[in-house]
Amino acid sequence: MTRFALTVEYDGRPFVGWQRQDNGASVQASIERAVHAVTGETVAVQAAGRTDAGVHALGMRAHVDVAREITPFRLMEALNALVRPDPVAIVECDVVPDDWHARFSCIRRHYEFRIVTRRAPLTVERGLAWRVPAPLDAQAMAEGAARLVGRHDFTTFRAAHCQADSPIRTLDRLDVVAEGDRISVFASARSFLHHQVRSMVGSLSLVGLGKWSPDDMAAALEARDRTRLGLNAPPDGLYFLRADYP
Amino acid sequence: MTRFALTVEYDGRPFVGWQRQDNGASVQASIERAVHAVTGETVAVQAAGRTDAGVHALGMRAHVDVAREITPFRLMEALNALVRPDPVAIVECDVVPDDWHARFSCIRRHYEFRIVTRRAPLTVERGLAWRVPAPLDAQAMAEGAARLVGRHDFTTFRAAHCQADSPIRTLDRLDVVAEGDRISVFASARSFLHHQVRSMVGSLSLVGLGKWSPDDMAAALEARDRTRLGLNAPPDGLYFLRADYP
Repeated sequence: MTRFALTVEYDGRPFVGWQRQDNGASVQASIERAVHAVTGETVAVQAAGRTDAGVHALGMRAHVDVAREITPFRLMEALNALVRPDPVAIVECDVVPDDWHARFSCIRRHYEFRIVTRRAPLTVERGLAWRVPAPLDAQAMAEGAARLVGRHDFTTFRAAHCQADSPIRTLDRLDVVAEGDRISVFASARSFLHHQVRSMVGSLSLVGLGKWSPDDMAAALEARDRTRLGLNAPPDGLYFLRADYP
Repeated sequence: MTRFALTVEYDGRPFVGWQRQDNGASVQASIERAVHAVTGETVAVQAAGRTDAGVHALGMRAHVDVAREITPFRLMEALNALVRPDPVAIVECDVVPDDWHARFSCIRRHYEFRIVTRRAPLTVERGLAWRVPAPLDAQAMAEGAARLVGRHDFTTFRAAHCQADSPIRTLDRLDVVAEGDRISVFASARSFLHHQVRSMVGSLSLVGLGKWSPDDMAAALEARDRTRLGLNAPPDGLYFLRADYP
């Protein structure tokens, strides 16, 4: 048995999310089907993060155990040929030790959330960014974001159905980068609660619109109350960028 | 009658091209239908360039004459609501003099051609860039591109069915910009022949692969012979960026 680490890129639009589900196409099932077609083996592919429906990945990390003798390069090429026409690509493939786990060995996850501020609908980026039809004050957003960095109880920014044992997380980075009518929010942490990035970005958009002050962001965090959440941003703009391992 | 200049963004994937045709959906027909829905008027929308099937635009310029009294802002908002679900957006709308013509007044057109060099298929950018499954030498491409800048007979880089009276064009700019696995080719000229940008980029890719030298590019140009064309790049990576007016 050989364990392969995969770096996976995907367009989340046609999927119910990363995770295999009965109600639609998933990235996980797409890759598992391709592995089965290559090896004849029924496998479970494990990922660093389970992205929701419509969320994209540029560098998701995953692993899979394969009994058949195959080089990483040939496995990658075969999977890329067989996942078609699904918008999934294996961009790296390496052999890793048997105790390397895409989810449990991961020490940091990085996300980007892309916003385009304009009235006109999106065209080439439809489903690939969140369109906000008014200007956003990126400086105010950066001040609001700074209030969330560090170790906190993120109950306010957590989905009602989040299954994590604890709402305590350490947010290492929440940076707001603006260029023209584009704003990207970069978030890094060992792990995130369900909907945490989208919830933080949604609330930051209220700060950008001037409806909330940066202090309101701190107050919402301190309230530890989901009903104090400003807004949950749509999945369209969210990208799993990469995962770090020791 | 008021003449409105429109700046139009579109995703070329679902269209047979800019121009109204009997065999499928076009950007022109999409906008003309929307204008009719707003004004009740049957109009012809004129554009700075007639892009081919699958070619995108970030800043196409066009104009339309409307009899009904309407402000540019209201016209833009109405068109954006009515072109849905087509991936077309009016991003600017202004009143211009009656003798301003999107095509005939235009003094320079700017295109970008986006290449991604990697073996893995594209996902979020599928149809939005040209994937070349091998590394390209961007420096050699830049040297090859320099041989094409200036006033030349571009017969080699012209579609067989190109209807222009003369194959002489003045290419003002053909720049190769590389970043990581991405290469963009920027082309500017008063006007281009049919397929000229895609033909130049296709041949430049041969230079990047080392199959052609920069001198081979100059020889192909001097041959004035379509059969000497290296390769016509696919439409996926081509974007009409903007048009200049006096």
